[in-house]
Formats: sequence, structure tokens, C-alpha cells
Amino acid sequence: MSQSAVSRAFTPGARISPETRRRVLEAAERLGYRPNAIARSLSTRRSGIVALIVGDLHNPFYPQALSQMAQALEAGGRRALLLTHDAGRDVQETLDAARAYQIEAAIVFPTRLNSTPPSLGDVSRGGIPVLLFNRRLPGHDDLLSVACDNHAGGRLAAQILYGSGARRLAFIGGDPETSTHQDRLRGFSEWLAGVGLSPVAAPARAFHYDWGFQATLDLHAAGERPDAIFGANDIVAIGVLDALRLLGRRVPEEVSVIGFDGIQEGGRVAYRLTTIRQPLEAMIEDALRTLDDPRPGSGPRLHPGELVWRGTVRGNPP
Amino acid sequence: MSQSAVSRAFTPGARISPETRRRVLEAAERLGYRPNAIARSLSTRRSGIVALIVGDLHNPFYPQALSQMAQALEAGGRRALLLTHDAGRDVQETLDAARAYQIEAAIVFPTRLNSTPPSLGDVSRGGIPVLLFNRRLPGHDDLLSVACDNHAGGRLAAQILYGSGARRLAFIGGDPETSTHQDRLRGFSEWLAGVGLSPVAAPARAFHYDWGFQATLDLHAAGERPDAIFGANDIVAIGVLDALRLLGRRVPEEVSVIGFDGIQEGGRVAYRLTTIRQPLEAMIEDALRTLDDPRPGSGPRLHPGELVWRGTVRGNPP
Repeated sequence: MSQSAVSRAFTPGARISPETRRRVLEAAERLGYRPNAIARSLSTRRSGIVALIVGDLHNPFYPQALSQMAQALEAGGRRALLLTHDAGRDVQETLDAARAYQIEAAIVFPTRLNSTPPSLGDVSRGGIPVLLFNRRLPGHDDLLSVACDNHAGGRLAAQILYGSGARRLAFIGGDPETSTHQDRLRGFSEWLAGVGLSPVAAPARAFHYDWGFQATLDLHAAGERPDAIFGANDIVAIGVLDALRLLGRRVPEEVSVIGFDGIQEGGRVAYRLTTIRQPLEAMIEDALRTLDDPRPGSGPRLHPGELVWRGTVRGNPP
Repeated sequence: MSQSAVSRAFTPGARISPETRRRVLEAAERLGYRPNAIARSLSTRRSGIVALIVGDLHNPFYPQALSQMAQALEAGGRRALLLTHDAGRDVQETLDAARAYQIEAAIVFPTRLNSTPPSLGDVSRGGIPVLLFNRRLPGHDDLLSVACDNHAGGRLAAQILYGSGARRLAFIGGDPETSTHQDRLRGFSEWLAGVGLSPVAAPARAFHYDWGFQATLDLHAAGERPDAIFGANDIVAIGVLDALRLLGRRVPEEVSVIGFDGIQEGGRVAYRLTTIRQPLEAMIEDALRTLDDPRPGSGPRLHPGELVWRGTVRGNPP
């Protein structure tokens, strides 16, 4: 039996006939053989394990990104070690915990990192590349990072809403401590300033459905009647749409709404949310390529968001 | 420096003062010390790694269950190795891949397993307990399994809809090859038979939003006018609700709808779906307890679903 047949028999998805595979597995069972990726890793330092550190799974974008990332890793013969990260903790703790499992790289998903940037840098210097996915630590462009161009996306949202005729534009933000929130708001405000406007309101708290819902009710209770709302992400925008439904304000006739991310839920008949989609496949591919050949110091690698035109912005697509 | 302080410094969430932790980490950095859970595992055979094998992440119930499971494992000092499983593959392949990482147990989430039960049994006999989460392999009650009582839940759905006055009840199924689909339909049909009824239609294909949507349109195109629909799970029921919205059929005045699972999305204003909630926390706790003290042969451990009354069933809660 060839060594390559044995290897293929233990590699999910490898090309091998069912008959050969069965024979290899029977022989392995008789001999008590089991390939031990972890023992191998102790000599080669290539465990094949990549830590995925995830935070807030209330936002459906992350489970979606996470499962696609796990599949992409597996397609390349690697595995995902999943670690959850609580925003109240230092990400350094979570990374230390991951390092105990001989990981060869870590990908950090949470939008909010309670960490002093130097300690994150330490991990990078420890020889394990750490990549921030869709976030950046301001002032620390030396860390590996792959993100959507949130600043350009914020500008695009303003342009689309203004182009639909809106002049009283509100931004309903997410967690104000995150780079995604900050970059989207900055792009939005900058573009509006160019036409002599500023957002009529920009409350911010969390990237949650409940917050988008509550903030929209609060705005209206305070007497604001925006004619367009940019939700900091899709799940916030979906909360906005449900609140507008409750208030009896018609979308898009009276109010246009745009989101950010491109989650499946936004495409449903109840919402038909116009949004700026993150090009997730391209971002994941780029992240894995970057980890294979890490060059810290080159700054975040940005991917432009793509406009998905559905039914929540007045008029016709640009 | 005490050994326990060192250990706590590397244990996320452990009680230790920031100052002590900082001193331990500085000393560790100087000495190049890093706790190596994997090297330890080679002697103790307790790696602390539990494989979570997940399938269809289109259904939001699974990302939700997965993240709660990962958190529960971490709370007990263990870690989740995430493996995705494609329904077209044999689950044995995925389990073999996981075993290469010195896992101490595996939890299998996918609702559909293309596996001959004996091969699953082999893994159990290999010394690694395998637990099926919310599914069973008919005829193989010797495998560890923690599930919602889907049969009783199906009966409850029939009882609730009948109690609301419905007499033309449809079931819109999920993947017909899964135990969740089969058990829910069987309970539903059995209860209806007790009052001399049977479902007016029971198409089945997939646990997807798109399918719930399409099946509802097809039913109506074929001239069926059910006065109640039981969606095999929440994401199917949400597709049903969106199709009814498009057809102009009022919920709950003309049609009552009930789902199964209790996903967050069902609680939103656009849906307010009445459903049978899986007691996820209790199921996860039970799964981890069962893996700590595995007793194969005791059959699936069933947890009753809980009625969550919202706005899609006529009348008042029972």
C-alpha cells in the first residue's frame, strides 16, 4: 500500500476510491494506526491549527464569516480551533490560551478589542502571525489586517441616500469603540460635509437588532423625522426597519434605509434591505494568503464594499 | 511565585490580580515559558479539545447552539475544535480528521448524517465518546445523544393549532432524511389522527428559508388554503410567513403559523413567530455532563420543548 494512498485515506475530500480507502482504514484499524497531527506538530511546528477568535455572535455576519473561514481552512488541509472572546476581557488572555494548543496562526474576529495594542504586537513577535479580520487598531497598522473599506463604504452610503433625494440623513451607529463604527461614520459625515450637510442624528451603542429598533423609536420620540437612515450594519438596519414599520413610516416612500454587511437575513421579503455588501469570499481568501506569507507593517488590506440594490432606498439604482 | 498563580495567569477568567498576572507573564516571557496543552495531552490523553462537527449553517439555530456550546466548553477549561461537515460526505471521514488532533470527545451537530451507523459506532469504540446533538440515528439508541423531544413537540404544535380553531392544517417539512423532520411530523400526524384529521399537505425538502417560502407559494398555487401551517423549524416558518405576506393572507386572522427551535430572528417585529423553543441551555449542560460520564446504551436523552407564545396563532395561549 503506497504511503500516498494512506495519506489520502485520512485526508477528507482527497481523491481516492472507496475500495482503497476502505482497505487502508481496515489495515489501520488492525495496526492501531492513527495519524497524529499534534505529535507531528511538535517536531515541525506546523500543527495545521488556526485559532479563530470570535466575539459577538449576535450579529449574524460573524457566524456566516466564521463558517466560511472554517471551510476555507479545511479546503487547505487546516483546522479551526474556535475560541470565544468576551469584550470585557483582554484579547491577550484569549490569545495566550490559544497558543497553548500549538496554533500556527490566529485570526481575530471581534469588532471590539479591550487590549492595549502593544500586547497584541507581542503575540505577533512571539512568532505566531495574528490577523485582524474586518477591524483595525488605530495607530497600529503594523498588525496584519484584512478588512472591508468601511470608510469608502460610509461615503458610498451617503452618496446613495443623497442621490435618492434625502436631505435629513441620520446615522444609527454600532459600538462607538470599534473601528467599523468609526470608519463608516467618518466616511458618511465627510461625504455629507462635501454637500454642506451633516447627519441630523448619530446615536451609537451596539451592533444589535434591539439597539437599531430602540434608537429609531427614540429619534422619533425626540421629534426627529429623518428622510433617510444609514444603519451601521445590517442587523442594526433591520431593527430600524421594524421600528419604522411600527411607527407607520413607509419605506422607501417616506424614509430610505441602507445597511452594511450583506447578511442573508437582509434579503428576505419582510426587509429587502438595500445594503453595502462585504466581499466575504475575497476577504477570506486574502486573509489566508496573508497568513501564509505575513508581512507586518504593510497596513490593513482593504476590500471595497459592493452596493446591493433591493427595496429600501427611493428611486433607481445609480 | 506559586504554581497556582502561574496556572491562574494562563487561565482565562481565573481570579488573579492584574498586577500578579502581569508579573507572571513578564517572567514567563523572560524564560520563554508557554504552557503546552498539546504536549501535556500526549501523556495524559486529556487534550482538553472537544471537536464540534457542524453542518448546515443556513439554519441560524446551529450558529447559536455552536457559540453557546463553545462558551460552555471554555467555562469548563476546554476548547472547541471546529470542523465543518458537508452532508454529501461520510461523517466517519470528518471524525477521522478530528481524531488526528487528539480530541477527547466529539459532538456532532449536523441534522443529516450520510453514514452507516456501524461506522459511527466504531468511533465510539475507539475510546472517544461521540455525542449526537439534537438528532438520533434510528435503530442506534446505543449512541450518546441529547435532543429536544421532537415527537412531543410535534404533538404540541398540532394541539395548539387545533385549539386555535384550525381544521385544515399543513406541515411544511425540512429535510425528510433527518430525525428532526421525521419525529416532528410523526408527532403532528399522530395527534391529528386522534381527532380524526390528517395534514392537508406535508411537502418536505430542506430546513431553509427559501424552501418554506417556495412550498407555501406552491401549496396555494395548487389550490390549497390551509388555515394553519406548522413549519418544521423556525427558519422554514419565517419563509412561510413571508410567502403569506406576499399572498396577502393575514396572519393570524386567516392562517395560524407555528415554528420550532426558538431562534432570535423569530422574535422580531416583522415576524413575532409563535414557536416551540428548544431548551438550549439545559441541552448543552446535559450534553457536557453526558460526555464526562458516557454511558452508551441508555438511549437519547430528551428535553421537552417550551411553547413561546407570540403573535402568529389565533386566540389566546392555552
